[in-house]
Amino acid sequence: MDFLDEPFPDVGTYEDFHTIDWLREKSRDTDRHRKITSKSKESMWELIKSLLDAWSGWVVMLLIGLLSGTLAGVIDLAVDWMTDLKEGVCLSAFWYSHEQCCWTSNQTTFDDRDKCPEWQKWAELMTGTSEGAGAYLLNYLLYVLWALLFSFLAVSLVRVFAPYACGSGIPEIKTILSGFIIRGYLGKWTLLIKTVTLVLAVSSGLSLGKEGPLVHVACCCGNLFCSLFSKYSKNEGKRREVLSAAAAAGVSVAFGAPIGGVLFSLEEVSYYFPLKTLWRSFFAALVAAFTLRSINPFGNSRLVLFYVEYHTPWYMAELVPFILLGVFGGLWGTTRLGRYPVLEVVGVAGVTALLAFPNPYTRRSTSELISELFNDCGALESSQLCDYVNSPNMSRPLDDIPDRPAGPGVYTALWQLALALVFKVVVTVFTFGMKIPSGLFIPSMAVGAIAGRMVGIAVEQTAYHHHDWIIFRNWCRPGADCVTPGLYAMVGAAACLGGVTRMTVSLVVIMFELTGGLEYIVPLMAAAVTSKWVADAFGKEGIYESHIQLNGYPYLDVRDEFSHRTLAADVMRPRRSEPPLAVLTQDADSVEEVEALIKGTDYNGFPVVVSRESERLIGFVGRRDLTLAVKTARQKQEGVVSSSLVFFTEDPPPLPDDPPPPLKLRRILNLSPFTVTDHTPMETVVDIFRKLGLRQCLVTRSGRLLGIITKKDVLRHMAQMMDQDPESIMFN
Amino acid sequence: MDFLDEPFPDVGTYEDFHTIDWLREKSRDTDRHRKITSKSKESMWELIKSLLDAWSGWVVMLLIGLLSGTLAGVIDLAVDWMTDLKEGVCLSAFWYSHEQCCWTSNQTTFDDRDKCPEWQKWAELMTGTSEGAGAYLLNYLLYVLWALLFSFLAVSLVRVFAPYACGSGIPEIKTILSGFIIRGYLGKWTLLIKTVTLVLAVSSGLSLGKEGPLVHVACCCGNLFCSLFSKYSKNEGKRREVLSAAAAAGVSVAFGAPIGGVLFSLEEVSYYFPLKTLWRSFFAALVAAFTLRSINPFGNSRLVLFYVEYHTPWYMAELVPFILLGVFGGLWGTTRLGRYPVLEVVGVAGVTALLAFPNPYTRRSTSELISELFNDCGALESSQLCDYVNSPNMSRPLDDIPDRPAGPGVYTALWQLALALVFKVVVTVFTFGMKIPSGLFIPSMAVGAIAGRMVGIAVEQTAYHHHDWIIFRNWCRPGADCVTPGLYAMVGAAACLGGVTRMTVSLVVIMFELTGGLEYIVPLMAAAVTSKWVADAFGKEGIYESHIQLNGYPYLDVRDEFSHRTLAADVMRPRRSEPPLAVLTQDADSVEEVEALIKGTDYNGFPVVVSRESERLIGFVGRRDLTLAVKTARQKQEGVVSSSLVFFTEDPPPLPDDPPPPLKLRRILNLSPFTVTDHTPMETVVDIFRKLGLRQCLVTRSGRLLGIITKKDVLRHMAQMMDQDPESIMFN
Repeated sequence: MDFLDEPFPDVGTYEDFHTIDWLREKSRDTDRHRKITSKSKESMWELIKSLLDAWSGWVVMLLIGLLSGTLAGVIDLAVDWMTDLKEGVCLSAFWYSHEQCCWTSNQTTFDDRDKCPEWQKWAELMTGTSEGAGAYLLNYLLYVLWALLFSFLAVSLVRVFAPYACGSGIPEIKTILSGFIIRGYLGKWTLLIKTVTLVLAVSSGLSLGKEGPLVHVACCCGNLFCSLFSKYSKNEGKRREVLSAAAAAGVSVAFGAPIGGVLFSLEEVSYYFPLKTLWRSFFAALVAAFTLRSINPFGNSRLVLFYVEYHTPWYMAELVPFILLGVFGGLWGTTRLGRYPVLEVVGVAGVTALLAFPNPYTRRSTSELISELFNDCGALESSQLCDYVNSPNMSRPLDDIPDRPAGPGVYTALWQLALALVFKVVVTVFTFGMKIPSGLFIPSMAVGAIAGRMVGIAVEQTAYHHHDWIIFRNWCRPGADCVTPGLYAMVGAAACLGGVTRMTVSLVVIMFELTGGLEYIVPLMAAAVTSKWVADAFGKEGIYESHIQLNGYPYLDVRDEFSHRTLAADVMRPRRSEPPLAVLTQDADSVEEVEALIKGTDYNGFPVVVSRESERLIGFVGRRDLTLAVKTARQKQEGVVSSSLVFFTEDPPPLPDDPPPPLKLRRILNLSPFTVTDHTPMETVVDIFRKLGLRQCLVTRSGRLLGIITKKDVLRHMAQMMDQDPESIMFN
Repeated sequence: MDFLDEPFPDVGTYEDFHTIDWLREKSRDTDRHRKITSKSKESMWELIKSLLDAWSGWVVMLLIGLLSGTLAGVIDLAVDWMTDLKEGVCLSAFWYSHEQCCWTSNQTTFDDRDKCPEWQKWAELMTGTSEGAGAYLLNYLLYVLWALLFSFLAVSLVRVFAPYACGSGIPEIKTILSGFIIRGYLGKWTLLIKTVTLVLAVSSGLSLGKEGPLVHVACCCGNLFCSLFSKYSKNEGKRREVLSAAAAAGVSVAFGAPIGGVLFSLEEVSYYFPLKTLWRSFFAALVAAFTLRSINPFGNSRLVLFYVEYHTPWYMAELVPFILLGVFGGLWGTTRLGRYPVLEVVGVAGVTALLAFPNPYTRRSTSELISELFNDCGALESSQLCDYVNSPNMSRPLDDIPDRPAGPGVYTALWQLALALVFKVVVTVFTFGMKIPSGLFIPSMAVGAIAGRMVGIAVEQTAYHHHDWIIFRNWCRPGADCVTPGLYAMVGAAACLGGVTRMTVSLVVIMFELTGGLEYIVPLMAAAVTSKWVADAFGKEGIYESHIQLNGYPYLDVRDEFSHRTLAADVMRPRRSEPPLAVLTQDADSVEEVEALIKGTDYNGFPVVVSRESERLIGFVGRRDLTLAVKTARQKQEGVVSSSLVFFTEDPPPLPDDPPPPLKLRRILNLSPFTVTDHTPMETVVDIFRKLGLRQCLVTRSGRLLGIITKKDVLRHMAQMMDQDPESIMFN
């Protein structure tokens, strides 16, 4: 008769745009684990099944690592090819990028690896000549047209097939990891469309990066593999452990920085990050990085994206410009990014391409630009940025070049960089937040790197021309190595990235995994900490938090300090003027009354009390479970009618003669609801909500039920205390 | 009349060997913060005070960084000098170490930087000759005598002045950070004696490292500076935030690895590690590393302790030996270290010195040994380990030497290394756990590095002699670079360190901050994960956890999964057979009765109920606070006698005519005690204890108080469930 003893579908699941109950998920997983362990003693097969179950976490990690590494490699290759397609085509094989084309060519000389007859610019291919204004204009036109085409394709695909594929996805992933349900956000379609449109968007030359979206892509992979194992697909808490690790794998492949990825996931994205997840993330990040390295999209078998090798140590006095760069980064972090989502993507892409083409520093891809800016000027460097006047007596080894006066190329580069800086700043502000996949890491790094390189050259030339000044006297003797402008670019990039995201430790780790520059931890740390302080002083929140707020997601930030003197009694509902709390009694309500209660309210659950008079709490029952249970009972359990009694006790209550069969619902009753007293300070309540991941909490006074506090109530109260609009919290 | 409105001393403090209540500490800090904020609006001076208060955290971090960096530098220099003192003395200035002596000498040639006339071995100084068996024996004797002297001094100082200075201190620091009080463990005397005896112990040549103890030293610094600010000295929770950061600074200076330090603190040591602490730790670690770099004890202005530069990439097939080294490291981690504390330190030091002197690989300091083992054999390398047979046609650049057959020196080195391995293993097992400051990091790394180097040489020679084997064919063509034995040493060191401590992410970060070998993340990660798996499969616990258990500290490990099907009702006290719970009523007990209750029980606190009949919970009062309050009231409040009523309500209860003045104790009553229902699964209770850092938790059923669960009850229950002796948990 007790139909609830058999599991019935959907009990224990959540509705879309609702918050999960971490404690319940955790205890459901322990139940499952216990069952498997006790069964494993029964037979060999069950033992094998339990072992498989124990290892499934590592298997999922392996799969995530493999797939996200592969996808990242494919995206890298495709972006490379399509970016070059805007300029020309490879005659020997059209699917080769410029570099691959000339690499496979036999007619390339070492000095000019970029030029080979197989690679033809569009004008050359069409008109036969690559010289003159006509050819330039034709190339210009085709560059813009390709950009328009790519961006049009990207925006259309996103709009038609997967609206969730736009943006970087990190704010939403943060929210999901904190326990929110957004169905489809990590689905197969999102994965597919995001991958394709990411390639298109980056190739179109828009000022956006692929790094943030790669985190989203990796999380989609994680979600995909979760569905293979019931351990993860049926438990929203366990699923989030996998997603945290997937985020780490995403950053790992985005930057070739496995450890930075784990730290990013820990510091920036994750909410619940037990040590077990730390180790698994580490493994996933490792496999992902390794897979990417095997695909080898950069052709240098290195994991390192912007490998640098500086030969000069840095000096104490240089901390001043580094800290200034930190301030600049902090200010960049306070820019109101992503507030212009209405602009037409294709239009922005067109304008970007039009303005980008004439300046060599904006025409090339942003990662190439950053790579050049980070570079130290060795003797073999042919870049314009390295056009220094050589001193006549060069008797030193090639890689140890003293400071020299800047040549005309450097001065040209300087004003081109200044223009590029203005362009990047303006364009990035308008690009981020558009309805296409777009990351902020690389554009921010580019802004910082440009500013940093300019500062670096300025310091270098000042030091060269004034090496008798007191501050330069000790470390800048004439003919000696002194200032490395590339290092300034690196520090500037770190500062801007830090300002936007407010990362610190993970930022420094990513930067030195990205560049291999282990000696420069102190400058990087100084810049990161300064930029965080400055940005915090001005802007209060990082880009992800501000986007979460903009969207009204119920995100309880672990970083916000709650220090107001309010008590649980001030926040709980019902308020004084409101009708009393909607409760159920343990054995006195009929099916009809329960249904009326469900219909008449929209609460997510109801406390169950001994009786309405004593108000002594027994447990808590969720709305979804209750609705499902009553509905199923009406359909399947014989004789259950409107007047049937609903009881939550162990044994049925004493019934009148010839009663309709009662409905036993103890199975769906949560017998350990979380309670606090009405005198509990709200700061403790906030702490409990954060640390235990509660959905709601009941308020009692000397054993009597007084009210309820939900996560939404907490968030609204916090918003109110910070003089924000409490109605900005939209979901529960 | 209400004397408790004024703060009176010691309310809210804890007794020695007791656990703190994190929630209470946190809410006390919020109160304090609130007071300062509201006062800050009153006057300029209060505003400045509030700003100073806000910045005091960063100031403490700065001070910790400066002091621990300085201490680490001084220790490094002193160890260097005293280690060399065992061999000889510098004639030009006796306080110079061997290296410094010859560095300042004018008569040193470049080829033989180690030999200069100013540095004299003892035999040379005493007898005038450094040749012959007599001189050798004299040197041997003095080496052993110095070792005996140093170790005797170390052990005496520890025994007489600061018994807490022994060991690495990390297990105790873990316990303290989890909320336990051990008075004096981080005191000034411990700091002083630990610093001095650490130098003595390391210099005596015992197989121990200074890295672990440096964490203790840094934490002592942290505790010292806490006492400067009432924000930290009066709040045990805030103090622990500072200590977590101090631990990071300690590792930062121990290895020159600031980021590794932060991760070590996060992964291995800390219990409560909010993001704010992450940033502060980062800052402290940065300052500490920077201070150490300015002192520059290694004389190379690098932060990097064992800088390596390898020129060969690693190959997939090499993962097999790397994983084998991981297995070896895991096995090393299961060694029962530190279980022989009764052995006489001086005896062990004597035996160590006697056995160490004849073998060149054990005579030198362990860090020098590791450094040599990590080294790649460049062309200029004069080490015995680099005695390869040179091929006749050497037309390559100097730093790119192909694989060559091993010469006789390598074979000699191999058996010396084998002996050194056995020696190190045996000696380390007996050394760790003795009553002197001793760390395990460096000895473990040495064991791993020796094993790794031997495996590396074996693989290299196999590859050289059999380069036609399938596995070697692709990557080991004759005349090409192929295997780097130094890399194997590095991987082996990481594996052994990982096996002992079970670190993963922080281990890899420390290893590559230590060596600068960013390219080798994957091998390091593979070894770290393997060694962790193997050690976990065999030994269950890392060295720190097993020492915590050995000492019976109440440490609730976040890593232990609790998956048994017990309920709060099964763990709570009183058990069925026991007398009922000792409670106070809100307004019906007299001073006499309260005193009798305090005297008759040894509980840490008492629940307060409405009445003994209704059993409805009002709050919780701590034993220490209650004792102090009653005692103070007896002394200071007029008319309080044994028959005075004690009441916890807002207003005094109705009293009979001419009563003795009642005693109002609402001020010390915790009105928001933590409660769970008796049906709450123990896994949830354990989770709550862990995450909220509770000391006790009350158990109710439908609003009635049933019992109490303390941290000790939880730990005992967990021990029982894991078939361990519940009596091993000694403190509450």
